[in-house]
Amino acid sequence: MKNVKFARCIRCGREYDAVPDLTTCECGGILDIVYDYDYIKTQLTKEKLAARTERTMWRYRELLPVEETTAPTPLRVGWSPLYEESRLADRLGLGRLWVKDDGQNPTASLKDRASAMAVAKAGEAGAKTIACSSTGNAASSLAGNAAAAGLETFIFVPSRAPKGKVAQLLTFGATVISVEGSYEDTFELSKAAIDKWGWYNRNAAINPYLSEGKKTVALEIMEQLNWQVPDYIAISVGDGCTIAGLWKGLKDLYAIGFIDRLPRLISAQAEGCCPLNRAIAQGGDWHPMEENTLADSIAVGVPRNADKALMAIRESNGIAVNVSDAEIMAAQQLLGRTCGVFGEPAGVTGTAGVKKLCEQGILGREDTVVSVVTGNGLKDVANAIRACGDPITIPSDMELLQKAFRDRGVKL
Amino acid sequence: MKNVKFARCIRCGREYDAVPDLTTCECGGILDIVYDYDYIKTQLTKEKLAARTERTMWRYRELLPVEETTAPTPLRVGWSPLYEESRLADRLGLGRLWVKDDGQNPTASLKDRASAMAVAKAGEAGAKTIACSSTGNAASSLAGNAAAAGLETFIFVPSRAPKGKVAQLLTFGATVISVEGSYEDTFELSKAAIDKWGWYNRNAAINPYLSEGKKTVALEIMEQLNWQVPDYIAISVGDGCTIAGLWKGLKDLYAIGFIDRLPRLISAQAEGCCPLNRAIAQGGDWHPMEENTLADSIAVGVPRNADKALMAIRESNGIAVNVSDAEIMAAQQLLGRTCGVFGEPAGVTGTAGVKKLCEQGILGREDTVVSVVTGNGLKDVANAIRACGDPITIPSDMELLQKAFRDRGVKL
Repeated sequence: MKNVKFARCIRCGREYDAVPDLTTCECGGILDIVYDYDYIKTQLTKEKLAARTERTMWRYRELLPVEETTAPTPLRVGWSPLYEESRLADRLGLGRLWVKDDGQNPTASLKDRASAMAVAKAGEAGAKTIACSSTGNAASSLAGNAAAAGLETFIFVPSRAPKGKVAQLLTFGATVISVEGSYEDTFELSKAAIDKWGWYNRNAAINPYLSEGKKTVALEIMEQLNWQVPDYIAISVGDGCTIAGLWKGLKDLYAIGFIDRLPRLISAQAEGCCPLNRAIAQGGDWHPMEENTLADSIAVGVPRNADKALMAIRESNGIAVNVSDAEIMAAQQLLGRTCGVFGEPAGVTGTAGVKKLCEQGILGREDTVVSVVTGNGLKDVANAIRACGDPITIPSDMELLQKAFRDRGVKL
Repeated sequence: MKNVKFARCIRCGREYDAVPDLTTCECGGILDIVYDYDYIKTQLTKEKLAARTERTMWRYRELLPVEETTAPTPLRVGWSPLYEESRLADRLGLGRLWVKDDGQNPTASLKDRASAMAVAKAGEAGAKTIACSSTGNAASSLAGNAAAAGLETFIFVPSRAPKGKVAQLLTFGATVISVEGSYEDTFELSKAAIDKWGWYNRNAAINPYLSEGKKTVALEIMEQLNWQVPDYIAISVGDGCTIAGLWKGLKDLYAIGFIDRLPRLISAQAEGCCPLNRAIAQGGDWHPMEENTLADSIAVGVPRNADKALMAIRESNGIAVNVSDAEIMAAQQLLGRTCGVFGEPAGVTGTAGVKKLCEQGILGREDTVVSVVTGNGLKDVANAIRACGDPITIPSDMELLQKAFRDRGVKL
């Protein structure tokens, strides 16, 4: 990898060769991949990029930590649509608003970007098997991307995991171990098994390449905006890997001169589980919290990538905003009705945060904002059902239909 | 529309001006849009197409029945991935196999192509409201595409419609009328309401523009294959609109000289509901059937576009293949495990048909096949759950994990 110098611990600064199966620093700190931007500048120009026909995350190869000989992974990950939403901007009182619908990835979440990277690096490591512990999108994206590449997966889930997500994993052929216990118990068993059998490790925040995959969402947003930097980028935050990846991508582009300033990040968490935003608000370190939110993908009381996430939010002079479950479900319907975008609860939490900041007068008509939707609403139909009112239910009769319309005040 | 001559009834031959709100012929026959291929040949070349950056169904504008001034619809519909699946081809004993994953559309099914066309034509007709009756993908795709365009929708569903699909509709802001009665009752109420209030009609097979939207799946397949025609294209068949659209797209390309031969169609239906395939097998007309299959999107006992569908299958010298529900669910797992593609039961029925034809020796190593997956497995998680075995369920203990692996014969 001519474009990568090494990996460096963000806690103690120790440097490591960027071998494919990197995990964490000896001190327990998370590693960060360090690039040779001077070299990258000689390899990548905006014009060169614009001429590429590959519309996946692999179009940004010069900025990704993979060997020159590593092939793109099989599924079409990335290059999700960025929609300008003028009507929603107007309704919220914003200058301009774009929605990046990352639910339009192969397994329907942004996590495909990290899992595709894991599959590529596992290939470089010569591994035939990848493992992770997760209850949700990381697991299904790993199972899907690995299956397409002919790799085996071992996925550890807590037994409370929703049956639907387990079904996805089994459909993709993963060996699923349902652990009777907490998420922490699940994680520990996965760690012991990975140590014993030497599987490639796709645990969030342990493997430093994952957020390098996730950063492609930022590269795409900026290219899709023709390198015109918005004032803010809003995203939901759970264990912190995604917002850290987003920020890394933006800093990469700034370092190679593709953008001339950096946007401010909006970190949106659920009121019932906001350890990182609480740390931002209080100005100190984070502390564990209960996981009281229906937005399961960001119900993370002990965020595993807190260090990188807090650094990203602070460096960007970001805004931390917490939203209630009711505000999350209202944002889901707002995006559905106004934009035709159906996001899962955690997926629309960023947009809920933007709406709240508009209502508080913190964002307004002079601001431009990108809101990332991180997962598809079809992932969690149960909560959408609960949030929606009932349909009009009648026999097949025009008189009754007209009466029902009148009773409900339906405009015709 | 300089590229369109008129619409013609496929039953009596009567011609109609191609106004935006066309429905059926006075004789009850279905209309077909007739193009001026000589004109189109002067406007569209392969080179011109290759230079286009628009990666949606609207890149084929010269072959679509829309005014030159009509803007593309807002959601990113079309240009779904076409994956070459060498390992699956090998396993089935086929020469080459590609999977077109049309579950990667905005509302997760091929129906987005028809609904985007409906939204475009409704705009040309000056309509502010679109209506349809449907229980599934047509409804949710219409609701989503219309919401993004700022149009209102009235959707009529039978009260037996799964709650999850109703929730999608409500999230997209549709006015949903749940009709206590059969699908026929639902259809009749929608017809009466459309007549009374003059809404734009997106009922399948009534509106002749819908299959023109669906045909873009064929245009994409051929462009993605660099105009190299496969021997077969396999697809699941319900009311017949989709296979008719697929064939129309292929004939368009043949008419303008982009391809030099036509593939044979493989029409895959469920054994429990196969009125069209039965007509093909028996060589006569179709007759209604019961709807005994879990593949809900193709559980159509009274297909509304039988005429066009039968014509397409017969013109192509096609193959009709029926598969059991067990074969459908086996194909779902095969696609998941081998390709990382998760299709809904109706979505994978084409692949189930291909598998069966391989087992019967009708397809073999000399054949090249494209199999279209028409909808995403997240649409129907319940059936996937039932088809999958149970995960390994244990406490967090390495001894127990090793025992479970031994008991199940898991290779490590």
